[in-house]
Amino acid sequence: MRNSEPIERLIASFRNLPGVGYKTAERYAYYIIEADSSEVNDLVKNIMSAKTEVKFCRECGGYTNKDICSICASRSGDIICVVAEPKDISVMEKVKNYNGIYHVLGGTLSPLENRGPDDLRIKELLSRIEKYGTKEVIMATNPDVEGDATAMYIARLLSPLGVKVTRIAQGISMGTDLEYADEITLTKALEARRTIN
Amino acid sequence: MRNSEPIERLIASFRNLPGVGYKTAERYAYYIIEADSSEVNDLVKNIMSAKTEVKFCRECGGYTNKDICSICASRSGDIICVVAEPKDISVMEKVKNYNGIYHVLGGTLSPLENRGPDDLRIKELLSRIEKYGTKEVIMATNPDVEGDATAMYIARLLSPLGVKVTRIAQGISMGTDLEYADEITLTKALEARRTIN
Repeated sequence: MRNSEPIERLIASFRNLPGVGYKTAERYAYYIIEADSSEVNDLVKNIMSAKTEVKFCRECGGYTNKDICSICASRSGDIICVVAEPKDISVMEKVKNYNGIYHVLGGTLSPLENRGPDDLRIKELLSRIEKYGTKEVIMATNPDVEGDATAMYIARLLSPLGVKVTRIAQGISMGTDLEYADEITLTKALEARRTIN
Repeated sequence: MRNSEPIERLIASFRNLPGVGYKTAERYAYYIIEADSSEVNDLVKNIMSAKTEVKFCRECGGYTNKDICSICASRSGDIICVVAEPKDISVMEKVKNYNGIYHVLGGTLSPLENRGPDDLRIKELLSRIEKYGTKEVIMATNPDVEGDATAMYIARLLSPLGVKVTRIAQGISMGTDLEYADEITLTKALEARRTIN
């Protein structure tokens, strides 16, 4: 043991954070020991309140500290963007000109992990579409086998209702060198080609 | 604001950790929200106890939760390795065959930051050398201008006492391509060349 016991215990705790190895955890631990007490108290307080105050929005299933999140409370339900996890909402919100609402499925269809349609918030999606008179549902699940299958499943489910279902485009990422793009991405990019003249 | 208030406050706290930007802090915050309560409680408990229990070793000035750290309590004082900061001890302890003790200066000499010999734990070093009958002092301050100056200062201070003072070697790091080594490092490496046949 290179450090005294309380330090090693804190390092072990920090190593649970995603992507944190021993060296990074040790840097964080030393930072904590050397930081102002008020800063450390704030960190602890903020960890505790995030853990106790954050709950699921009654409407979309995203994270909020109220009954209904600020997005659901303030935007029209004309367009619903469907995501797999609550944290995906913050990712999509980077797109400044999206003004629709969200719906969190709570995962994707996964035969391997034994997750079927009844384990996702699909019934809730249907009743929201009806309630809001939604015109378009954008499927923003991850571009992988499960995400694609989930998008297709919901598209088929919604087509008899006359709701337009779209899928976020798959193709070459901005700034990527063609040379490093994988075969599947290139195939999708070619399929989805658009006229530019 | 892309997240609800408690989440954004937690992200802001995590951003204080060294090298953590918004994206990483957001990943940590979501991890906390989704983790088991027991794990989060452990993290909080470990932060608090590291902050309250960890103090300076009365002898070497390193971090410990006792009066005297486990290294000072168990090793001979024949060799003292002098470092600038408490956290440098854990770095040096990676060297498995070093069995001496340490001494933390609490910084390096720095005219720019107005830090002179009286601001460092030099008096304590002298009295420990006398008490232990130390034979060698290894200066393991950083290989930069301040670290070198501090090493030279202490070397001069100790030479009348008949204590051998050494400096950790400077040269090319293992695995570095010569091509990428900087001029000063190459100069030091050449100066410190050793016969190998």
